[in-house]
Amino acid sequence: MAVGLRAPARLYPVQGLRLGALRCGIKANRQVKDLALVEIQPGSSVAAVFTRSHFCAAPVILCKQHLALQPSARYLLVNSGNANAATGQQGLDNARSCCAAVAAAGNVKVEDVLPFSTGVIAEQLAVEPIVGAIPDLVDMLDPDGWLSTAEAIMTTDTLPKAISVQLNIDDRPVTITGIAKGSGMIKPDMATMLCFVGTDARIEPQELSEMLDLLVASSFNCITVDGDTSTNDSCVLIATGAADVKVDRNHRVFFDALQELFEKLAQAIIRDAEGATKFVTVSIEGAVSVADARCMGFTIAESPLVKTALFASDPNWGRFIMAIGRSPVESIDIDRIDLYLGAVRLLHNGLPDPDYRETLGQAEMSRDEISISVNLNLGDASARIWTSDLSYEYVKINAEYRS
Amino acid sequence: MAVGLRAPARLYPVQGLRLGALRCGIKANRQVKDLALVEIQPGSSVAAVFTRSHFCAAPVILCKQHLALQPSARYLLVNSGNANAATGQQGLDNARSCCAAVAAAGNVKVEDVLPFSTGVIAEQLAVEPIVGAIPDLVDMLDPDGWLSTAEAIMTTDTLPKAISVQLNIDDRPVTITGIAKGSGMIKPDMATMLCFVGTDARIEPQELSEMLDLLVASSFNCITVDGDTSTNDSCVLIATGAADVKVDRNHRVFFDALQELFEKLAQAIIRDAEGATKFVTVSIEGAVSVADARCMGFTIAESPLVKTALFASDPNWGRFIMAIGRSPVESIDIDRIDLYLGAVRLLHNGLPDPDYRETLGQAEMSRDEISISVNLNLGDASARIWTSDLSYEYVKINAEYRS
Repeated sequence: MAVGLRAPARLYPVQGLRLGALRCGIKANRQVKDLALVEIQPGSSVAAVFTRSHFCAAPVILCKQHLALQPSARYLLVNSGNANAATGQQGLDNARSCCAAVAAAGNVKVEDVLPFSTGVIAEQLAVEPIVGAIPDLVDMLDPDGWLSTAEAIMTTDTLPKAISVQLNIDDRPVTITGIAKGSGMIKPDMATMLCFVGTDARIEPQELSEMLDLLVASSFNCITVDGDTSTNDSCVLIATGAADVKVDRNHRVFFDALQELFEKLAQAIIRDAEGATKFVTVSIEGAVSVADARCMGFTIAESPLVKTALFASDPNWGRFIMAIGRSPVESIDIDRIDLYLGAVRLLHNGLPDPDYRETLGQAEMSRDEISISVNLNLGDASARIWTSDLSYEYVKINAEYRS
Repeated sequence: MAVGLRAPARLYPVQGLRLGALRCGIKANRQVKDLALVEIQPGSSVAAVFTRSHFCAAPVILCKQHLALQPSARYLLVNSGNANAATGQQGLDNARSCCAAVAAAGNVKVEDVLPFSTGVIAEQLAVEPIVGAIPDLVDMLDPDGWLSTAEAIMTTDTLPKAISVQLNIDDRPVTITGIAKGSGMIKPDMATMLCFVGTDARIEPQELSEMLDLLVASSFNCITVDGDTSTNDSCVLIATGAADVKVDRNHRVFFDALQELFEKLAQAIIRDAEGATKFVTVSIEGAVSVADARCMGFTIAESPLVKTALFASDPNWGRFIMAIGRSPVESIDIDRIDLYLGAVRLLHNGLPDPDYRETLGQAEMSRDEISISVNLNLGDASARIWTSDLSYEYVKINAEYRS
């Protein structure tokens, strides 16, 4: 049911990165891959952000420990089908055993390997199938392994999510390729479910880390399916430097391309949101703070009554007013609020627009891609949140998830 | 689909109150009542709390104005089918016209009449059918009009909600009777959708107001269906004094009976929640503050993934862990958390209980009434939140609400 999302177009290899993916047997479905490995050439810069859940998963804890020991990485090991979350010391030991097996096969230190997991929470991870598959995984590493890896990290996703761009900087080709997964339990807080982006540009580690924070703020931190934040959210940005072109956030062509790639990956998660029939952009302008704008945007985007009206294509915009009204923002003056559905003005200075007609609202609500815009007319801060509707299919997918 | 909710048992009249209800034509459905009037004898104490929505409805604004002019009331006028919210000056004028018509018929001042509305947001209220019906309404006022009034204030409710108790205090009979409505757009913040409770005990106005705050804190402020707060939430407590028995919050028999009545009315809203197939109690103990306990309780209770697992009777309690993990509480130590589903321990000190078996969890999740209990083992504060599941029917009801 993905909204305006197609299978990935051509994915360019990134010099300095090789990838492989296979089925090792974590998932019950015998048709799908569930394990992937990314090899990073020595000397690359690696930055990562993670979920802020109190209950962050064992692989997230281990990633942070490994990055604290040395702020780079040589391998990323990713499994789907099991989150390895709420699994205690045994979960940490299991994740470390998997990393150790990769380290032995690749002749690197265990802290050079970063583990990632996604899937069911509170079940122990089966180590043997993963460790047993690592020799085969290493053998199949290939610069063209991006699509296969994007497929291997899927859970309830209906399509793999991957984007690739090539730039010409200083007469040299520079590539950026990224993959992501996620469809439900989506309200990333500093990172999304799983996202891996690589470039062969050279970026200093500290700069890469600060760039990642900026990129995530305007992409994965602006999406919500259900307001539910995962225990395993992780986002990694790798710069191998193999293209021998040095850039930083001030290189507009490069940074704009990278930002667009992050935003499109984040939007791809919403387009493929569980049960989604609509892709919805909620824009808040004229707020006194970004925090206020984001708070109101997420309140509208996560309201079950707004989401069911969107599913029904019903211009019952009293529910938008309800959500604006209940959003716990600091500063609001309802007599100054303008509210739009697409180009149709619903409220002006807090009152129903006398020119509004139900047919106008109906036409906007019937689209696949819908925008809801609020101008608080109080300040200069704004936010833009992407979300999906709440359909029978969302309930069905999540009622039947484990069956 | 109400869970464990039956039609009201016998409702005792409250001396000093008369009620009437009829159909005046606000609702399209010709079979249902949509207007009610409550007459309060002179000298009664009246306390009220209202929604904290920024976009509070015209009748809520007018109620506050009238109560500021004189802290009592002689009439409550209630319509269903139209919320009279986001209707600007015209909405206020319309509500005032209705109050004026009641005031003329009852020979009281306009500020002696409190208006209440519930229904569709952002449509102007039709004044003529209401004003035209007032003579008939006044004629039909009856001490036994409680059930008829409970029916007239329903919207998506499947059953009227009303409770009545009689006490013997100082050898005198004292009656408490209350009615409520609400089924969706339910996360009252200081008050519920609509609730009117009357007693013939005598309670001083200031004491009545403070009692109402206490009562609402442990009842209507502990329920959520969808986290969506209405523009029209109002809760009114009336003490006529006609039984000539004076009480205050320290009268345990009276206050306990009143508190139980408030809690049962709040629970009745959850039992009749839109599409509900489960009645769920989320208990948080051992928190460092009530705010933390309530925050975590509501995060669990409002998580779409928890709610769909409840609907599916699926003991996928990894989602409880996810919700605990994402709840923005101040103080948490996951290594101290105990988690229970009914009597079955899921987590002990943050780790899966080794004695847990899927069959045990399945048995608990298959019940109509489910409890989820978290002990943070950090402090003495607690909270108890009542909620419902998220079913196909919830989506259906709210996708088709206006059609």
